[in-house]
Amino acid sequence: MRNLLLTIAYDGTGFHGWQRLPGERTVCGTVEEALARVLGREVKIDGCSRTDAGVHALGQTATLLLEDHGIPTERIKKALTDCLITQKREGVGEIEILDVKEMPEGFHARYSAKGKQYLYKIRNAESPDIFKRTRYYQIAQPLDVEAMRRAAAQIVGTHDFACFQTAGGTPRETTVRTVRSLDIQQDGEYITISIKGDGFLYNMVRIIVGTLVEVGQGRRDASEIADIIESKDRQRAGHTAPPQGLYLKEVYYDEQQTDLG
Amino acid sequence: MRNLLLTIAYDGTGFHGWQRLPGERTVCGTVEEALARVLGREVKIDGCSRTDAGVHALGQTATLLLEDHGIPTERIKKALTDCLITQKREGVGEIEILDVKEMPEGFHARYSAKGKQYLYKIRNAESPDIFKRTRYYQIAQPLDVEAMRRAAAQIVGTHDFACFQTAGGTPRETTVRTVRSLDIQQDGEYITISIKGDGFLYNMVRIIVGTLVEVGQGRRDASEIADIIESKDRQRAGHTAPPQGLYLKEVYYDEQQTDLG
Repeated sequence: MRNLLLTIAYDGTGFHGWQRLPGERTVCGTVEEALARVLGREVKIDGCSRTDAGVHALGQTATLLLEDHGIPTERIKKALTDCLITQKREGVGEIEILDVKEMPEGFHARYSAKGKQYLYKIRNAESPDIFKRTRYYQIAQPLDVEAMRRAAAQIVGTHDFACFQTAGGTPRETTVRTVRSLDIQQDGEYITISIKGDGFLYNMVRIIVGTLVEVGQGRRDASEIADIIESKDRQRAGHTAPPQGLYLKEVYYDEQQTDLG
Repeated sequence: MRNLLLTIAYDGTGFHGWQRLPGERTVCGTVEEALARVLGREVKIDGCSRTDAGVHALGQTATLLLEDHGIPTERIKKALTDCLITQKREGVGEIEILDVKEMPEGFHARYSAKGKQYLYKIRNAESPDIFKRTRYYQIAQPLDVEAMRRAAAQIVGTHDFACFQTAGGTPRETTVRTVRSLDIQQDGEYITISIKGDGFLYNMVRIIVGTLVEVGQGRRDASEIADIIESKDRQRAGHTAPPQGLYLKEVYYDEQQTDLG
């Protein structure tokens, strides 16, 4: 069996999330249909992150076990990309296959991942922009980015992040995670929050962002964050920021594993 | 009867065009449904331009005849705007009501219009961007903007523009129109074509853009344009550029008419 790693970007607006779901248009389902056309038979892929409806990806990953088929990865990538183009003349669609490579036996997009980076994009401007509504969290009230940075500094590190988890996600053995970095960049009316960590609980990034936004709005103080984490109480943290600002940027693997392709 | 002029912006991506169509989600139909909720009864609006599926507007106009109702225009605007917000927390939707004002009897969004401005946006970059596919015409091959400007100069003026009309549109008495200006601005990988005229035939802007693009690609010479117009032959002109690059920017009326609100 060949073990292929696909790297995939998508605009999540028109999808009911990543994970296949009967009767719904999902990213995973759409890629699997394209693969079936390319390979001439049904296959399943296993994604790293089950992004929710409306969430985007710049570097989602998925593994595909394939009986040896002889097709070079470059040809699979090209055929799959062509299959996913919806605007023929322009060569663009909602999903883009960025890379296809051979991985060693046992490698798995999700279980082999060592960490991930997410971006969260905010548009901080008084008037909403209808053309940006699917790609940014629109916030009219000016945010105090310095206060948000002070709050963010308390989140970095290894903590029990139960307070930043939506109840009802996949049960996990532990809610302890390590956030390696949490940076906030402002460029005019655009604010980008970049977060890297070894793993994330269900809705963790969106709840962190919602909490940071409330700090930026002055509705809570930056100094509260350590207590909120300590409490392990979801009720003490902020709202869940909406899906359309969230982008899965990159999945990290051991270099040894990803350099075999 | 009160005669109200609505100015409306919309992202046309999710709509089957402006004009109401049974069983389809259209901009006009969506605004009429919101008006019915605001006013408590069914009303019809009459738009200036029947934009196609995927075409956007920054300043579409529509008139609404209303039995005297006493509600000030500002309240109609606010209630209608609230009704059209689909992302409650962020206060943004696909349609935005920019203005509502009182007009004299007999004023009509379409028949009273003296001219219109359209923008057409091109993304001229080698790699397509999945996040921009609904708002730009993606063209990989570098365009010669100077050649496009030479071609554009031949289009400005009063001509029989039969060559730039899709067969099958509303029959018109004459295909003579006046293009007042046709400017092409380049800003990095973005090219914006701005066209102003007294009126436009069906698909006229998109066919002009398709023809200019072919000049920019070197597939035809700028000097051909006068002959193409002279021929009145649709087959001699270029392709119809896709809808998602097109924006109805502004409708012009006599100042006397629009200053009464």
